[in-house]
Amino acid sequence: MAPERADAARNRARVLDAARRLVSAHGPGQVSMDQVAAAAGVGKGTLFRRFGSRADLMAALLDDEERLSQRAFLFGDPPLGPGAPPLERLRAFGEHRIRYAHRHHALLIAAGRAAPHHRQSPPETVIRAHVRILLAAAGSSGDLDAQADALTALLNPEYVEALCHEGRDEDHQIRAWASLAAKLCGH
Amino acid sequence: MAPERADAARNRARVLDAARRLVSAHGPGQVSMDQVAAAAGVGKGTLFRRFGSRADLMAALLDDEERLSQRAFLFGDPPLGPGAPPLERLRAFGEHRIRYAHRHHALLIAAGRAAPHHRQSPPETVIRAHVRILLAAAGSSGDLDAQADALTALLNPEYVEALCHEGRDEDHQIRAWASLAAKLCGH
Repeated sequence: MAPERADAARNRARVLDAARRLVSAHGPGQVSMDQVAAAAGVGKGTLFRRFGSRADLMAALLDDEERLSQRAFLFGDPPLGPGAPPLERLRAFGEHRIRYAHRHHALLIAAGRAAPHHRQSPPETVIRAHVRILLAAAGSSGDLDAQADALTALLNPEYVEALCHEGRDEDHQIRAWASLAAKLCGH
Repeated sequence: MAPERADAARNRARVLDAARRLVSAHGPGQVSMDQVAAAAGVGKGTLFRRFGSRADLMAALLDDEERLSQRAFLFGDPPLGPGAPPLERLRAFGEHRIRYAHRHHALLIAAGRAAPHHRQSPPETVIRAHVRILLAAAGSSGDLDAQADALTALLNPEYVEALCHEGRDEDHQIRAWASLAAKLCGH
């Protein structure tokens, strides 16, 4: 890597680290680009040049979180990752993504991604494929595409947040997801 | 009813009838307010004063369609309406709403309602309650709220349309919905 590119990569990592710390301390709604620039030790001009806008910076943070989540459910420790029976993995996946949706809801809004992702967006496609594979591995009968779509709809961040406001909290939703998954797998 | 109000109601019905005919002949994207005013025999000023905008007029048309749909599944003939066994009604409801979503997709876009309805909007609430009641009547076990939400997600117009573009046409979706509904009811 040329020195200049290495420098750019370091700056990017520093900005994202600073933004992540500020967001987790104060909530994404309370974090300005000035604060991020100051905390990362870069100029505000550099910050806007690299990340475009506040929403883009929040989207970059979210992309990082999505990558960590994918790594955990595709390659991490069981029961979320490989090694546990498929229905246990489905249950762990529901819990993981419902908590993820709730934890990152304010960040989704700040990133302008509160509206449902396009169905064909890479994260949605991976999530749907993962659920479908686990349904098949658990021996679920019937139309697995429709079942995967129906289960995945319950993980949508807007939906998760709306239910929390209606008094069906995360734990309630996690139990409901697990019960639906078990039912689809004939348990 | 005072003569003036009766007159306004007649005008409203004439405008909606004209708009409905034009939309069904040419598609909502091809219908202008000028055409609607001419076909209904009212001035363009009156049209805008009564309906606000083209999108509002399309929304009024959609509200009419939604009312007709509700009347059919709540009070109409079986198997969609009362009188058939609950699982048969669920199957008929899935077919009815998937065809509804596909048929009215262009109108939804023209009305600015292509994005998913808010969960708490009156039509969504009625649909969810209807599915939940039929699941309960069919003896489905487990968390019926989550099951109703999951089934209802498969009726969302954006979803129905996206699947048609992916090659899972209406008939395919109707079969998938019926199979999921039957599975949830233990059949």
